[in-house]
Amino acid sequence: MDRKDKVSTTVIRRLPKYHRYLEELHEKGVERISSNELSQLIGFTASQIRQDLNNFGGFGQQGYGYNVKDLQNELSKILGLNRVYNAVVIGAGNLGQALSNYKGFEDVGFKILALADVDKEVVGTEIHDKKVIDFDDLKSFIKEQDVHIGIITVPKEQAQKVADTLVESGVKGIWNFAPVDIEVPNHVIIENVRLNDSLFVLSYFIKEEELRQEMERRQKNK
Amino acid sequence: MDRKDKVSTTVIRRLPKYHRYLEELHEKGVERISSNELSQLIGFTASQIRQDLNNFGGFGQQGYGYNVKDLQNELSKILGLNRVYNAVVIGAGNLGQALSNYKGFEDVGFKILALADVDKEVVGTEIHDKKVIDFDDLKSFIKEQDVHIGIITVPKEQAQKVADTLVESGVKGIWNFAPVDIEVPNHVIIENVRLNDSLFVLSYFIKEEELRQEMERRQKNK
Repeated sequence: MDRKDKVSTTVIRRLPKYHRYLEELHEKGVERISSNELSQLIGFTASQIRQDLNNFGGFGQQGYGYNVKDLQNELSKILGLNRVYNAVVIGAGNLGQALSNYKGFEDVGFKILALADVDKEVVGTEIHDKKVIDFDDLKSFIKEQDVHIGIITVPKEQAQKVADTLVESGVKGIWNFAPVDIEVPNHVIIENVRLNDSLFVLSYFIKEEELRQEMERRQKNK
Repeated sequence: MDRKDKVSTTVIRRLPKYHRYLEELHEKGVERISSNELSQLIGFTASQIRQDLNNFGGFGQQGYGYNVKDLQNELSKILGLNRVYNAVVIGAGNLGQALSNYKGFEDVGFKILALADVDKEVVGTEIHDKKVIDFDDLKSFIKEQDVHIGIITVPKEQAQKVADTLVESGVKGIWNFAPVDIEVPNHVIIENVRLNDSLFVLSYFIKEEELRQEMERRQKNK
């Protein structure tokens, strides 16, 4: 393979951003772009961009730059986006409903087949044309429908139990929205979305900016 | 101030995790904890933990460790959580509805006062006991109700326009769920939640794990 054994997670987390910008460029009809132009657009340095992409073989040509469409295709392949993933949302509450109705996921190859819940009131109903199945039937559903990804939106107290069921059912990955760290075997990939953590970071920087403004005012009044 | 001028964003992004674990420890009745024990729990090295916390003055005592409740209180203050933030959700679609109904935000001091939308069909209705106001009235609402945070859940094409309105109205921070980079002046804090990016990272690691398993199989069959 024309690439290093293990690319750092920090680099991996930057790839979706490249992908997003290249998609926009492609939509705008841009055919090629230099690492300098890409740098101005994305906000990483040109050398950072070249380094990041060199992890996967490097796609630019000296004096030409990057072919936008080719690079985007390559990034799609690297990110594993050239296929369809089947997913199930566990927890048919508000967040689960919102995620199962978000069109953007299907556009990029993530197909939510159903929701699962323990609440007998909602089991059997449909939410945005998607069936709510009984949590007790989740295992067989995952095996029959070849589900790759479980999306956890249950309260944190239930999250580990749900994850255990998903692992036993053979999912490849878990997208976890419960605000708790879940343990899974190494061969199952877990990706956490920490909404509260993100909100706390926002709060931190708002507080810092208020302090800065307060100090500026005091300096002026001296 | 008993702290360094500027703490790196990487450290800041780790703080909510400390906060979360300390809260759990406190709920379980744990009164003190050493950096070694904390390390085993959180998964950062003990020296990393000491370094992170030293950015804010350091709270441990040699031979005693950290007082769980005190450290959690300090972290709350550092994160700016010892107050209430008023927020408005812009975009009364599924995601906006889900966020405005998520109890977890209010528990940590983020109060969603209303939703705003351009769709005259939903303006004036209530979603989970919260009013949907007309986007045209957003500016005056923000000023009258002392709104600190705008939560953007509109499609990416409208996101910058919404952000501009929020900035003009004087919000301190924006929590952006639209999959696009928004430009705001320096004094306004922006925090992005990139659901697609997170999904792409999950996809990448699933693909990598499949490759690894495939190679393992080939090795065995040799």
